Amino acid sequence: VTSPVRYRAVVAYLGTRFHGWQEQKNAARTVQAVLAAALRPLAREAVRVEGASRTDAGVHADGQVVHFDLPRRREPRAVRDGANDRLPEDVRLLSVEEAARDFHARFDAAWKEYVYRWSRAAVIAPRDAPFVAPLSPRADAARMREAAAALPGRRDFRVFAVSTPAGEPTVRTLTRVAIEEDGDELRAVLCGDGFLRGMARSICGVLADASRGRVPADRIARLLASGDRRLLCSKAFARGLTLRRVVYEPDRPPEDRPGALHSSP
Amino acid sequence: VTSPVRYRAVVAYLGTRFHGWQEQKNAARTVQAVLAAALRPLAREAVRVEGASRTDAGVHADGQVVHFDLPRRREPRAVRDGANDRLPEDVRLLSVEEAARDFHARFDAAWKEYVYRWSRAAVIAPRDAPFVAPLSPRADAARMREAAAALPGRRDFRVFAVSTPAGEPTVRTLTRVAIEEDGDELRAVLCGDGFLRGMARSICGVLADASRGRVPADRIARLLASGDRRLLCSKAFARGLTLRRVVYEPDRPPEDRPGALHSSP
Repeated sequence: VTSPVRYRAVVAYLGTRFHGWQEQKNAARTVQAVLAAALRPLAREAVRVEGASRTDAGVHADGQVVHFDLPRRREPRAVRDGANDRLPEDVRLLSVEEAARDFHARFDAAWKEYVYRWSRAAVIAPRDAPFVAPLSPRADAARMREAAAALPGRRDFRVFAVSTPAGEPTVRTLTRVAIEEDGDELRAVLCGDGFLRGMARSICGVLADASRGRVPADRIARLLASGDRRLLCSKAFARGLTLRRVVYEPDRPPEDRPGALHSSP
Repeated sequence: VTSPVRYRAVVAYLGTRFHGWQEQKNAARTVQAVLAAALRPLAREAVRVEGASRTDAGVHADGQVVHFDLPRRREPRAVRDGANDRLPEDVRLLSVEEAARDFHARFDAAWKEYVYRWSRAAVIAPRDAPFVAPLSPRADAARMREAAAALPGRRDFRVFAVSTPAGEPTVRTLTRVAIEEDGDELRAVLCGDGFLRGMARSICGVLADASRGRVPADRIARLLASGDRRLLCSKAFARGLTLRRVVYEPDRPPEDRPGALHSSP
């Protein structure tokens, strides 16, 4: 009798043509479904792929982490290449390694890093357009930074979440919120132990409006204090958001990770 | 009686879904034809767009330069935005300025810069895949550099050209050939006063084979000395090549360029 073997993989995808991460009953094109279909011939049975983050439609990933089981042990490199041969060009397994039997991509994640990109240029080059949201040329990094200062810490982020089920805990810790300026580009880098549904884009919507002076810099503090969703700005476009990496900490010792090809990016 | 006004524009495009720059009789999707169609409503007549470089199918541009005439003077910014509103998402006018009446994007170009990108990674991320050609993980930057050393200078590059018409001059000057290494990525930056048809990709094909040790480092010197096309390697994939910029030098004095929005990238 052989027991199934668990694998952990780092996955990159362009969110543009996906209806998000999570498999849906209506046969929409989702990353989870496309990965499961590519792994099925390797498993010779249905494969369930769990992701660390259930990214929304249009959101990209440079370093999503997933786990899945195969009924028999296979070389991680053969799993990676076999799946990539079958995947469409907008999703790739960057690396595959064997994981501990109880490794869980979502529950074991220590923290995640998202980046949101805006361009203040009059014209966005075709190369950047799928990854960048437009922003007024008058948007100001200092104002965005001032508004972002209220975010880091352990807080109830419910006001930024979309359709939170009753009873679901909504306290999360944002460990780092950095506003980066690079010529015409502005970026918000958000690191935290978890993100509620819609939270990253709701926050970035307020940051964008604050950078243009359309809402006062204390808007985020007031949102967090009051929980009043009427103070919320419109969500930022999905195309600007990328899940950059998922970090597992304390990471398992190397002897628990045979056949590692790469570490997370 | 009004006389037509000449405009100069910097254009960026993804080559992936274009059959190259040059308009064809068979209604293939070309950058030149798509630009002419987007400008026609602004001119209310047919517009002929001349490009500095006739890039091949699949080749990208970050800074192609073009010129065209409109029957009446219009604000350069209105020309830029009017055309961009009508252009498909894979091509954009980055900037438009009024040009001297006799400015010619191709004949007046002093030099052009192309960059070719290879990745030695086992997996190329979807974000990079349209712009990068795969290369063996064993490819070596030092060997590529050694092979490239024979290129710079004023030489007859006919051996690297595809279907050169009889009598066409084939002497060009390559002013700079730099091999850049950046993690798994290798890049060849080629600057020159002109490139024969197919020349950049033929050169990059030899550079790739030299980096893998498949041809000796003196292959380029022998090709140039002998003109023997049997020593040529296969052309590098179009997707790896990008026209980065076109430089006009000595550039016209500012008083000849009213309404400048941007300089070339």
